[in-house]
Amino acid sequence: MTRADFPILIPLTTRWADNDAFGHVNNVAYYAFFDTAVNQWLLREGLLDIARSPLIGLVVETGCRYRRPLSYPMPVEVGLRVARLGTTSVRYDVAVFGPDAEEAAAEGHFTHVYVRRETGRPEAIPDDMRRAFARIMPAAP
Amino acid sequence: MTRADFPILIPLTTRWADNDAFGHVNNVAYYAFFDTAVNQWLLREGLLDIARSPLIGLVVETGCRYRRPLSYPMPVEVGLRVARLGTTSVRYDVAVFGPDAEEAAAEGHFTHVYVRRETGRPEAIPDDMRRAFARIMPAAP
Amino acid sequence: MTRADFPILIPLTTRWADNDAFGHVNNVAYYAFFDTAVNQWLLREGLLDIARSPLIGLVVETGCRYRRPLSYPMPVEVGLRVARLGTTSVRYDVAVFGPDAEEAAAEGHFTHVYVRRETGRPEAIPDDMRRAFARIMPAAP
Amino acid sequence: MTRADFPILIPLTTRWADNDAFGHVNNVAYYAFFDTAVNQWLLREGLLDIARSPLIGLVVETGCRYRRPLSYPMPVEVGLRVARLGTTSVRYDVAVFGPDAEEAAAEGHFTHVYVRRETGRPEAIPDDMRRAFARIMPAAP
Repeated sequence: MTRADFPILIPLTTRWADNDAFGHVNNVAYYAFFDTAVNQWLLREGLLDIARSPLIGLVVETGCRYRRPLSYPMPVEVGLRVARLGTTSVRYDVAVFGPDAEEAAAEGHFTHVYVRRETGRPEAIPDDMRRAFARIMPAAP
Repeated sequence: MTRADFPILIPLTTRWADNDAFGHVNNVAYYAFFDTAVNQWLLREGLLDIARSPLIGLVVETGCRYRRPLSYPMPVEVGLRVARLGTTSVRYDVAVFGPDAEEAAAEGHFTHVYVRRETGRPEAIPDDMRRAFARIMPAAP
Repeated sequence: MTRADFPILIPLTTRWADNDAFGHVNNVAYYAFFDTAVNQWLLREGLLDIARSPLIGLVVETGCRYRRPLSYPMPVEVGLRVARLGTTSVRYDVAVFGPDAEEAAAEGHFTHVYVRRETGRPEAIPDDMRRAFARIMPAAP
Repeated sequence: MTRADFPILIPLTTRWADNDAFGHVNNVAYYAFFDTAVNQWLLREGLLDIARSPLIGLVVETGCRYRRPLSYPMPVEVGLRVARLGTTSVRYDVAVFGPDAEEAAAEGHFTHVYVRRETGRPEAIPDDMRRAFARIMPAAP
């Protein structure tokens, strides 16, 4: 995957503690990049109010393939697009890019199921949210 | 998956900061449990010396399905078994269990490719390591 | 400071990602140990309900002196005592001990100011909480 | 302390997982900001090569006062200056600023002792490093 595959690119900074004993950004940190980027986009679009949204996304599945190492202090960019939009769930494709790199250092996915905050019960994603998700869902070829 | 599926169970403590804004252990923290448990077993078995091993495992793929929420301050146990043993790679099945829970709160996988520390080139896993991995690889049914 | 200085000792596990590029538990991780231990004690004593307590402790000051390095995968114990009990605040002494070590690897402090959750305004610590704090506050010599 | 007190300001991004159960950046995360900023400046100035420097800074003391809360997703800037330069040690003043805020949200300090990587023994800071530290050490009034 390359930068061109992603309608959204979110710049993030790495941290000293992201580097593990082998001097590379630890596998765990990529997931911190993923959920930071997904929620940042949701907040920016007005689709999430952390303290008040009656519907919240619970993470039900994530995954990552690591292609090439990254190291603090390099900044990264997280690519984001919607891969699949279900009745109650949305699956994002995500990828992490090093500075000036066209090819992703890591590629992953991230799936939210929307539930009512009070009950934890899955609930259909409302139309206005669906429209926002559809905007960053590339057309099938 | 249940505890009985795992020959190894490694107890870990959760942390205040693992809980996210919704009061549950964040999806990222599960991956910290996974690589802590895998490396703990490798260290205990004498298969890893962090500062000196000439062969080191690079993480090439991880994934997780989240079944039910966990929350700090509950302790967890991480189940571990070898799912697949290739020439240069080993894939672990991993799972996180809450206290007294038979069913996994989350199930995942974690794949290391062994490389020479100096060059980063993949290298065949030596026989003594293969034997150790085979000991925690349940026989196919 | 030694283990004998602390009425409370809370065992915690270290994580692979706690080790930094130099192979030691990173300075940041000690603060994760501190607030995990303080809140664990508060939860155990019934002095904190994360989702519901009308009074919550805001952290206003922390500090740490690092005496000797620790490394994953060693487990640690966090010593805890109340050093000072003000009208609205409580200051804890905290320390981290390696396995079988009498002397602290790190010594620190951690100060909570109690505020009303709704307003964020400081509020006097109620008597039943004061009694609990006093129980782990060693008498002045 | 205000932005004007710091010759160096380093922009960092916050992460979803930095927010704790009360919806604020957790006290621990500030220390990740501090050591990320200090090391970023050292790397930029050519004063640190993580894998090779014969002299490395060990963190011997840190501390932080929290003035006002911050929350993901807001970006932050970390102010940095040298407060005291000893024979073998350097103490930094550090502070975290929210976006567009003149006043620090948190103020802290961070002390490195320089040791020989091989032996862990303290060693005098060489002159070229001293000159670099002196450049970000405001003159006493």
